[in-house]
Amino acid sequence: MIRHSMSHLTVHVPLDQGRAYDILIGRGLIDRAGARVAALGARAAVIVTDETVAGLYGARLREALEAAGLRSGVVAVAPGEASKSYATYAAVCDGLLAHKVERGDLVVAAGGGVVGDLAGFAAATLRRGVRFVQVPTTLLAQVDSSVGGKTGINSPHGKNLIGAFHQPRLVLADTSTLDTLSAREMRAGYAEVAKYGLIDDAGFFDWCEANWRGIFDGGAARDDAVAACCRAKAGVVVRDEREDGERALLNLGHTFGHALERLTAYDSARLVHGEGVAIGLALAFRFSARLGLCAGQDAGRVANHLAMVGLPTTLQAVPGGCGSAEALLEAMSQDKKVKDGALTFILARGIGQSFIAPGIDGAEVRAFLEDELRAG
Amino acid sequence: MIRHSMSHLTVHVPLDQGRAYDILIGRGLIDRAGARVAALGARAAVIVTDETVAGLYGARLREALEAAGLRSGVVAVAPGEASKSYATYAAVCDGLLAHKVERGDLVVAAGGGVVGDLAGFAAATLRRGVRFVQVPTTLLAQVDSSVGGKTGINSPHGKNLIGAFHQPRLVLADTSTLDTLSAREMRAGYAEVAKYGLIDDAGFFDWCEANWRGIFDGGAARDDAVAACCRAKAGVVVRDEREDGERALLNLGHTFGHALERLTAYDSARLVHGEGVAIGLALAFRFSARLGLCAGQDAGRVANHLAMVGLPTTLQAVPGGCGSAEALLEAMSQDKKVKDGALTFILARGIGQSFIAPGIDGAEVRAFLEDELRAG
Repeated sequence: MIRHSMSHLTVHVPLDQGRAYDILIGRGLIDRAGARVAALGARAAVIVTDETVAGLYGARLREALEAAGLRSGVVAVAPGEASKSYATYAAVCDGLLAHKVERGDLVVAAGGGVVGDLAGFAAATLRRGVRFVQVPTTLLAQVDSSVGGKTGINSPHGKNLIGAFHQPRLVLADTSTLDTLSAREMRAGYAEVAKYGLIDDAGFFDWCEANWRGIFDGGAARDDAVAACCRAKAGVVVRDEREDGERALLNLGHTFGHALERLTAYDSARLVHGEGVAIGLALAFRFSARLGLCAGQDAGRVANHLAMVGLPTTLQAVPGGCGSAEALLEAMSQDKKVKDGALTFILARGIGQSFIAPGIDGAEVRAFLEDELRAG
Repeated sequence: MIRHSMSHLTVHVPLDQGRAYDILIGRGLIDRAGARVAALGARAAVIVTDETVAGLYGARLREALEAAGLRSGVVAVAPGEASKSYATYAAVCDGLLAHKVERGDLVVAAGGGVVGDLAGFAAATLRRGVRFVQVPTTLLAQVDSSVGGKTGINSPHGKNLIGAFHQPRLVLADTSTLDTLSAREMRAGYAEVAKYGLIDDAGFFDWCEANWRGIFDGGAARDDAVAACCRAKAGVVVRDEREDGERALLNLGHTFGHALERLTAYDSARLVHGEGVAIGLALAFRFSARLGLCAGQDAGRVANHLAMVGLPTTLQAVPGGCGSAEALLEAMSQDKKVKDGALTFILARGIGQSFIAPGIDGAEVRAFLEDELRAG
């Protein structure tokens, strides 16, 4: 079922003003990165990565770039969400400057969502903007964070509160890199895969229920799923790049999820982003059912599928607890999706039928969370 | 000669994609800021300023905003170039978040070039971009840095190496704020005024030679000069927002100037930006004359006028010295205007006849600087 290593799938992102780019998806793309990156035209392409990914793929990627005539180098940060900080951002910028990255050069972000967001933000702001290439090496990054141009870091006030919209010039999703991913990280990324079905594609959610094991095993289903997710996300991004409307749907599960990450102090030993999203998806559907928007059996089906894959789906599943309903509400009101003080949620009328629900009453949310906490 | 306090000059900056904005120039605009800022539509308008400006105008500006129904607040940083740092940038972002600035709200940058660049960069990246208003309170900021959307901070590798293009939604240049400016700061800002004549408007340079005292005294010549500079800069910015070409002309004097600032460790006790620019302008014309591009008497006229105003025009004028020719060259090669390793200068064929000169040989520059250092 594994395709020939020289083949790949391509998803085109047709943005305007010369910013259109391709997402290439397939096994072995890292070793073939040189020609693709060199075709963008640059003297140097400096890699930003974390120490784990540097050990696994840093040398291969750098060799591929240098074989294509690009001067290269590596700036490596510590793995983990804590690197999405002001201090690491400054270190990455200064590292790129030490490698003499000029305005026409490229930054290559190789790693998971943390590296992509951090390196993308550094690229967006280095010399007021240099081009960058995403080489996502986790399922989460391949299906979500590497596509669409959202870059940024965390503030003590909340996640992703500092950043820029900066589109990559190319995304190389080498799906063979997922072979070495831990089961936990695969599952976490899978929460974002399932999310695309839940947002607006019930057929894709059906397909996921039937094929999720193939995604984990690395067969054709994996490449197909990554391509389907990228296609879905690219469509949303092209229609609403700056999240003035529809793009907010991609935050399904994320308002709850981000609050959980915040209350667990972004400690990946307790909760990683995708796990927060999984709990958030289950909560979004149960909250929708409670509000009479969606059938209870849809909410049950969502939680069942996520649990089958091995993902958490309740507040009780957060190791060490997640605090009170009040603390969760406060953490949510710090999220970007606050407008004029009212809470905006992404809710659903059923699987594949999500919608933006502004003006949700905080008291209603608090009562729901209290019941969820009691249910344990 | 001082106009009625309710009158002002307006320069329109016709950028596309809904980003057009007005620059208002006149005495007393701070007290009339409320209605203008409120017209942009926001719940909150939080002021970023430095402690000096906060003491002079913070309360008045805040009252004006709140009288117009805007929630306001003040985030104040230490005055001086050292605040264009990663650490102060983080503090400003977190300060704005503590004031609960949401995506539809406004940041109001009130101060000189440091505050405008820093607050503008914070606005560009807070929640991936919020709108901002410039209230420049120095001559330098009114004629140069508050217009055109360049924002940013310094890196240990050089000045303005981190930043974003982010246009203000409104600029309120209250020229009465210059009444309290030190003579040194007025002179420093004046270097940028004279620059506009030197770039492409010999007639304006003639006018400056005749009218510079009026700019310092605060009569109509001041408002006229600020408006003329803003009009010139706006024209360049509209034609070449991202500095792919013509906009680089605005860097006349700045390649030398930035290097001098770097070698004096951005210590304003020794050298402020405008003084670096004044020396840089004189050097750019003398270097142009040395290369046979421009008449020696034009170079002499430039230096004479700057000296008449009280500005430094030689490397020897830098208190504590500026290092060797080699150190200057090295500092210049760190500047943004490096492309593919070759030095790009803005040179001139005469007053008002500047042009972009790429590919300047480093050895030629070093020999020139060595002679300049010996000339002392």
